[in-house]
Amino acid sequence: MIYFDSTATTKPTKEILELYNKVSSEYWYNPSSAYNVALKANNLLIKSQNIVKESLGVANHNVIFTSGATEANNLAIFGICNNYLKDTKRIITSKIEHPSVYNVFKRLEEIGFDVIYLDVNEFGIVDLEQLKSSLNKDTILVSIMWVNNIIGSIQPIKEIVKILKDYPRCKLHVDSVQGLGKIKPDFNFNEIDLFTMSSHKLEGIKGSGALIYNNKINLTNHLVGANQQLGIKPGTIDLASSVTCAKTIQNAVKYQSEHFNKVLELNKYLENKIKEIDQIAINTNTKYASPFIFNISIKEFNAETIMHYLEQKEIYVSIGSACGSKTKKPEKTIYAITNDQLLSTTSIRISLSHLNTFEEIDILVDELRNYITK
Amino acid sequence: MIYFDSTATTKPTKEILELYNKVSSEYWYNPSSAYNVALKANNLLIKSQNIVKESLGVANHNVIFTSGATEANNLAIFGICNNYLKDTKRIITSKIEHPSVYNVFKRLEEIGFDVIYLDVNEFGIVDLEQLKSSLNKDTILVSIMWVNNIIGSIQPIKEIVKILKDYPRCKLHVDSVQGLGKIKPDFNFNEIDLFTMSSHKLEGIKGSGALIYNNKINLTNHLVGANQQLGIKPGTIDLASSVTCAKTIQNAVKYQSEHFNKVLELNKYLENKIKEIDQIAINTNTKYASPFIFNISIKEFNAETIMHYLEQKEIYVSIGSACGSKTKKPEKTIYAITNDQLLSTTSIRISLSHLNTFEEIDILVDELRNYITK
Repeated sequence: MIYFDSTATTKPTKEILELYNKVSSEYWYNPSSAYNVALKANNLLIKSQNIVKESLGVANHNVIFTSGATEANNLAIFGICNNYLKDTKRIITSKIEHPSVYNVFKRLEEIGFDVIYLDVNEFGIVDLEQLKSSLNKDTILVSIMWVNNIIGSIQPIKEIVKILKDYPRCKLHVDSVQGLGKIKPDFNFNEIDLFTMSSHKLEGIKGSGALIYNNKINLTNHLVGANQQLGIKPGTIDLASSVTCAKTIQNAVKYQSEHFNKVLELNKYLENKIKEIDQIAINTNTKYASPFIFNISIKEFNAETIMHYLEQKEIYVSIGSACGSKTKKPEKTIYAITNDQLLSTTSIRISLSHLNTFEEIDILVDELRNYITK
Repeated sequence: MIYFDSTATTKPTKEILELYNKVSSEYWYNPSSAYNVALKANNLLIKSQNIVKESLGVANHNVIFTSGATEANNLAIFGICNNYLKDTKRIITSKIEHPSVYNVFKRLEEIGFDVIYLDVNEFGIVDLEQLKSSLNKDTILVSIMWVNNIIGSIQPIKEIVKILKDYPRCKLHVDSVQGLGKIKPDFNFNEIDLFTMSSHKLEGIKGSGALIYNNKINLTNHLVGANQQLGIKPGTIDLASSVTCAKTIQNAVKYQSEHFNKVLELNKYLENKIKEIDQIAINTNTKYASPFIFNISIKEFNAETIMHYLEQKEIYVSIGSACGSKTKKPEKTIYAITNDQLLSTTSIRISLSHLNTFEEIDILVDELRNYITK
């Protein structure tokens, strides 16, 4: 099997699954209980929070373990905006966010918030001039992803932090799912008010993620219950998920540079080989993108058919949208950068990871060429 | 170790952990992807939903796997009430609900909903006359727990279903966390519009639960993202959690009667022994309660101190509230049934499970007597 879809998910490592089992078997008590064995479980939770803080260098951030990035993004964005339900304000995001951010903004717009959706340029980078002109003293939140999940474009988070310095009331949320542990930040995590991650994108388990936010920020909980995790993610602590999430972050940070360098080489190799095939349009500009994601369109062919052709060879890629068929909705990120209906309904996402090889890329490109020229 | 706190949580069985590992290792693909191995993962999700439906006999209900009961209760209650945010209506619950229900109603009250909190009688049973007089044509939701988590009182769900037949607009949500798989329902799950459960209370894993609701009901999602699980619980499917949740429900239903009968005997034995100790007030009326929960107060003594005394003997019970110290807040269920400040700040919850033994009860009662008479 040749797996080129690590942007969608990854297989958990043996180390992570063993840790999950150890915690589930030995520290299964409810960390909210008051007796000694439960306190030991709670100490493990605190230790996990500290591992996350140390790995990312954010001593003054709270760490909330969640059931994944969608939940974390919801708790972050609603957490800020729930403070303003009766006096709705301006909030800003981009046109190429993940649905767990984009659709939350759509919902907030329905409720009455004044939402600006920033455009992106042809490389998939948000328009900073538009951001500057959109910001006003009533803006309470800007949410911009670190790395786009469809084409891999890296957003100018450092510049956004700088721009927002003039708007102290406005918080910055960064969906870090495709960035954290994959590419090196040119910003300091301490400067990010709230950011979110997902374990299963980094060889962790599914149903696991984190919301990490500055402890001076007052969030109003969106899920309501007892007081676990500052009341932001109430419910019995899933300690095995929390401990493995911390370990996943620790590992991802530890191996980030090594994995990045390997994937960068794979990416260059892939790009050069793809460029040799005339019928393929490259949607990712690698100069502005994470090497983990490479997006193409093959205009003459139905992307879904190509995906299924490849799957017969046990090669797994993603079609750029939930369904790449020409009759279906265009992929919103590809459309935002190309303004081209055809390109945005025929896109294929090739994800790279440190587990991929040059030989796998050879096989993939050969099969794409076979398919196109057959 | 003698564990009398299975109402708080349980240890996952070896079978469940092995299943978790198998799914995590072999079916780790993203069930939302469109290629064959991912479709196999998605088929396993559908199979798990069907296991839940068959186990509970609810062919026309949707099964949403969640990260636990708190999330499930939130998605259910907000799911109904989010349809009425601009035209808030009457909603009804009781004074003894779990915080993941009770505090959601408090939040909805803040937003503008007209909330009625039903009283309970001295046995901890909701006042049905008050329910009848509170219902009006504008009532959209009644949420009543099946079994109270502090004293074990079983609510008259069958009667509530009957009463609500005259109010077709009003949906019934039942928090089934302490009932499902533990006691036999005198109602049909098909008649319950929405109900919720938690895996880790039934020897399943933590971070796992379900919202099960009639597929004719239109919920407005409270967590917003992509379209997974009907958009009600968006985010990458946690397949290992979903599959083990289904297995947990299947096992719980399969062994319900056997476990119940054993626990009933343990409960009778415990009650008779506790009755011999004059200083102990019994808060649970076993005639109206699940045998899995037995709540007492030892007026003369600080509950927290007793809990810590027992923990030194490796006996684990729960203090009725987050902190049983006399200076702290009274436990709301005990206060609702006793109206007694002292009883409600000194309560101790003894949970029974099929894994407990008569010998363990002997040891517990001996230690309680030792402590009181020392």
